[in-house]
This record gives sequence, C-alpha cells and structure tokens, in this order.
Amino acid sequence: MTKNVPAHWKKIRSEAGPDFVIMKARHDYLEHPRSHQVMKRVVFESTDWVNVVALTEDEQLVLVRQFRFGVEKVTLEVPGGMVDPGEDHFEAARRELLEETGFASEDWHYLGYVEPNPAILDNHCHTWLARKAFRQQEPNPEAGEDITVEVLGKDAVKQAYRDGAFRHSLAVIAVLHVLELW
Amino acid sequence: MTKNVPAHWKKIRSEAGPDFVIMKARHDYLEHPRSHQVMKRVVFESTDWVNVVALTEDEQLVLVRQFRFGVEKVTLEVPGGMVDPGEDHFEAARRELLEETGFASEDWHYLGYVEPNPAILDNHCHTWLARKAFRQQEPNPEAGEDITVEVLGKDAVKQAYRDGAFRHSLAVIAVLHVLELW
Repeated sequence: MTKNVPAHWKKIRSEAGPDFVIMKARHDYLEHPRSHQVMKRVVFESTDWVNVVALTEDEQLVLVRQFRFGVEKVTLEVPGGMVDPGEDHFEAARRELLEETGFASEDWHYLGYVEPNPAILDNHCHTWLARKAFRQQEPNPEAGEDITVEVLGKDAVKQAYRDGAFRHSLAVIAVLHVLELW
Repeated sequence: MTKNVPAHWKKIRSEAGPDFVIMKARHDYLEHPRSHQVMKRVVFESTDWVNVVALTEDEQLVLVRQFRFGVEKVTLEVPGGMVDPGEDHFEAARRELLEETGFASEDWHYLGYVEPNPAILDNHCHTWLARKAFRQQEPNPEAGEDITVEVLGKDAVKQAYRDGAFRHSLAVIAVLHVLELW
C-alpha cells in the first residue's frame, strides 16, 4: 500500500469563461507539480444540488419522471434540483420536493453529500431523507419543467433498480441509500 | 401509483456552443409539451467515460489519488477516464487501468453503465470489473496527470467508504459495486 499523496497543482491565474446560467465556465492555468508545465483546465462553477429520498408512512418512495435534455429521453429519478441563491440545501430539499411532487414532510434526515464530478465541477450534491412524507398540494413545477410523479413500493423500487430504470448517477446513489435503509 | 409518462419536448433547432476540448457545448431550443413555449437549454456533448473496479488475486482494490481541478483537492477514486475517439469502452477501461496504475488483467466483466448527468450531459459512464489484476508495468499517466496508486484490502475500503473518503459520485457507484461483490 502506497501512502504518498500527490502534490497539489499551483494555480497561476484564472479567467472567466462563458456563462451558461445553470453554471459558469472558468479557465484555470495550473502548474503540473512534477513537470512544472502550465496547463489550461476548464472548471464549471455551479451552485450545490440536492436530491430527496421521500418515503411515505407506508414506506413508498416518491419518484419523478421527466424529459432530460442531455440524453433526450424521459428518466426516472428522485426529486431534486439546484440550491437557489441565499437558500441552504435543506430548504432547497423541502422546496424541490414540494414543487416537483406536492409532497411534504416534518421528519427530515441528512444522508450526506457527493461531488457530482470533482474533475470539472466545483459543487456538492446533498441527499436528504424525508420520512412520513405526505401529499400536501398539487405539484407546482417551474415553467421549464414537465414532471410526472410516481409512488412505488419496496418491491417495485427493487425491481426497477434491477431493470436499470434508474440511470442518473446521482439518483442511483439516492436509490442505493433507500435500498440500504430497507 | 401514477403511470402516465411525461411527453417528450420537441427540438426546434440547435446551435453549436463553445468547444471545451473535453466537452462541447450545444444550445438546443425545445418546445415545452404543455405550454408550447420555446426554451433554450444547454447540453454538453461528451465522449463516454469508463471506471475500473480492479481487484487483485487476493481481493485488494486498486485505487488512485489525484488532484482534481473542479474541487481543487486530492481525491481517492477508482481508475478511469475518457473513451478515446475510435476506441470502445472496454479498450478504454484496459488502457486507463494500465496507464494510471500499471495494472493489467485477463479477467474482465462488464458491470453496467450510468448516465453521469442526463440533464446536461449526453454520455454514459461504464463500469468494468477486472479480476486477478496484477502489476504489469510502471504507471504511465498522461502529461496532464499526476497520480498516486493505492492498493487497499476489504476492511480498509469499507473503512474509507464509511469515513467519506470517496466523494466522486461515479467512484462511489464503482465502490458500491465492490461492496456488493463482497
């Protein structure tokens, strides 16, 4: 087992790149720790994201289907989204669950975070567990969203997972949290 | 359980955005299926990625530490990278394992794929399992990489996972495959 840790790269300078609204490109010039060559790398600055594992009183999981523009397909995922400016990620989790599914909860637990892609993104994705989730209102998605809510029991979630119905890497991590809870 | 599936959005037109070498931005104009409003969305066109779960004969996991430019920290991950043009993802898995760690294997198994981010990326990340991995040569990372190899046994991997040492979402998925195998 090798224990030596690679050196940090030294950032020489940064310049702003194009702003894509959901994220903003930045070009960093960094010095390789061994060759000392300066290399240009792109980083996409992004707000944090949240995912919500919402389980009803009878242990059903609240899921969403929506058309995703990257893969140009309808996907099955957990509710979630971007943390708004000035919002903390717990508030964002409550808001996204309510907006996308109409569900609310008074029993929240933090399950941890991952880095969606530490190579090119600077943000975290937080996963929140909402227990005893209940339908509070009609879903109220944003103007740019079109979402269908699906509530699945334990066996159906396990089957969907085995069938490869979950493909979004961050949704897979959220669903694995549920399977672990079960 | 609601079974209706949301409609696909109709793509009106696309225009090329900036080319970031590792990915290329594209702006799509799509019609919302209900409001019929046309909205602009960014998609980052990217080659597929691969991750390798490499286990030695005595069930040790081959890992890499490297400085990641997005989070500006050294991360612990499984070896992996981008599929090169003209390469298939199995070849890419063998190449990345050898380049980044110096390890090779003659016992490969496909573990499936995820979509790293179907909202903004059009690519897949494939996970390959290499059993009976052995050190074939010195690592030979690309000019823009500086990587340290770490080989950890079962208990150390479990402890590292519990300690939150793995943060890259795609590496977490790869490590969860290993924990499932164990």
